[in-house]
Amino acid sequence: MTSPEKIWTAGLIVIGDEILSGRTQDKNIAQVASWLQVQGIRLAEVRVVPDVESRIVAAVNDLRAAFDYLFTTGGIGPTHDDITVDAVAAALGVPVVIHPDARALLERYYANKGGLNEGRLRMARVPEGSELILNRMSGAPGIRRGNLFLMAGVPHITAGMLDALTGQLEGGAPLLTETIGCWVAESEVADLLRRVEAAHETCQIGSYPFFREGRVGANFVVRSTSAEDLKSCCDSLTDGLATHGHDFTPGGI
Amino acid sequence: MTSPEKIWTAGLIVIGDEILSGRTQDKNIAQVASWLQVQGIRLAEVRVVPDVESRIVAAVNDLRAAFDYLFTTGGIGPTHDDITVDAVAAALGVPVVIHPDARALLERYYANKGGLNEGRLRMARVPEGSELILNRMSGAPGIRRGNLFLMAGVPHITAGMLDALTGQLEGGAPLLTETIGCWVAESEVADLLRRVEAAHETCQIGSYPFFREGRVGANFVVRSTSAEDLKSCCDSLTDGLATHGHDFTPGGI
Repeated sequence: MTSPEKIWTAGLIVIGDEILSGRTQDKNIAQVASWLQVQGIRLAEVRVVPDVESRIVAAVNDLRAAFDYLFTTGGIGPTHDDITVDAVAAALGVPVVIHPDARALLERYYANKGGLNEGRLRMARVPEGSELILNRMSGAPGIRRGNLFLMAGVPHITAGMLDALTGQLEGGAPLLTETIGCWVAESEVADLLRRVEAAHETCQIGSYPFFREGRVGANFVVRSTSAEDLKSCCDSLTDGLATHGHDFTPGGI
Repeated sequence: MTSPEKIWTAGLIVIGDEILSGRTQDKNIAQVASWLQVQGIRLAEVRVVPDVESRIVAAVNDLRAAFDYLFTTGGIGPTHDDITVDAVAAALGVPVVIHPDARALLERYYANKGGLNEGRLRMARVPEGSELILNRMSGAPGIRRGNLFLMAGVPHITAGMLDALTGQLEGGAPLLTETIGCWVAESEVADLLRRVEAAHETCQIGSYPFFREGRVGANFVVRSTSAEDLKSCCDSLTDGLATHGHDFTPGGI
């Protein structure tokens, strides 16, 4: 038995025309999602919006009302298209201020790189009331304001900021997953999957078909916050697959 | 001079717990975005939502009201977690029906693979009033209902469905882009970028920094629907970079 427990949720806003034009393949959704899982927080929704203030403001206000935490990636650099700080400040109804610690960080970072200029100083701007998220990869910090986290768009800098936040956020029981692979068309075992999931109410089963080496197969991903229920559900599923005459591969194919 | 022209826009809803858990790296956002560019349609917003009917319904109703076209990927397979058709039908307020042509397609496809069963027949279900989007990769079709397009989640099947739709949708002038690469910290030329963009009102300049081989650089992406304005903006930008003493690389680095 697991006791009922609060499920902590997060929203993510990916900001940037480069994702919406198809020029850049987003990597932050998967990265933030995986990191949140380990913190015991579920990524509940992602929105990708352009570099347009009104669109960022609308997304921030929708998602911060809906979930416990809100993350953004992108738009906190030095150039004219970096408008995330202004948009978030507008959404919160607070002014944008220069954070003195961010200014000091940037002064040190750029001391032997030509010094601070107007563009670089933009990266010290924060919505009033914010703290910094340190970032060892580049001078510019991320920004935390309560349950709102503004992070870089460049994936390895985002990674450094997530690293700085690891273990800092309250979360619930991490969602546990087990994957079972099988060389079977998912359509052959759809009824089995439905029945096994229905019999294990704390578990969800996802079915992810693939085509490889000229054959069809599927990975069945079972998720639960209870290790005991997860095991019982996986056992029922593998028993069912065996009864239907299908070999399965623990860990997935 | 370009004449004022309608800008055609699309929303995309990526449906699936596997993206939100970080298990699967989404590839459909970039794929749909690039395809839309060629059709003269701008991807204006993406939402990633879980396999939960109420959340899909909300996203469908928000985005179909906001944009000219709406695409979804994921959740149209044979298993219990494939609920896109039901959610979209609920959003539109129409019943789910079996499409006779889809049923016939699936009967042929599965004739020598064990025949239709309950799970496979799920893939013939459509919101009433829909047409099919044919798919050479697997038996199951995508679904079109007016300006709403329901596509597969598996990227190479999505690709086949996009291929079937190529040239079928009304769009505007394709957005043209030119990329100029430069081994410069974007923070050094932020003011130049801002001034050049301001001087070319039909153009947007995006700045995408990178770190490679131990050096910083950036690609500047200039976008416009006017080839003439695009060239003029790129010329101003490369002149400015040269004036600042920076080499540039047409086509990007």
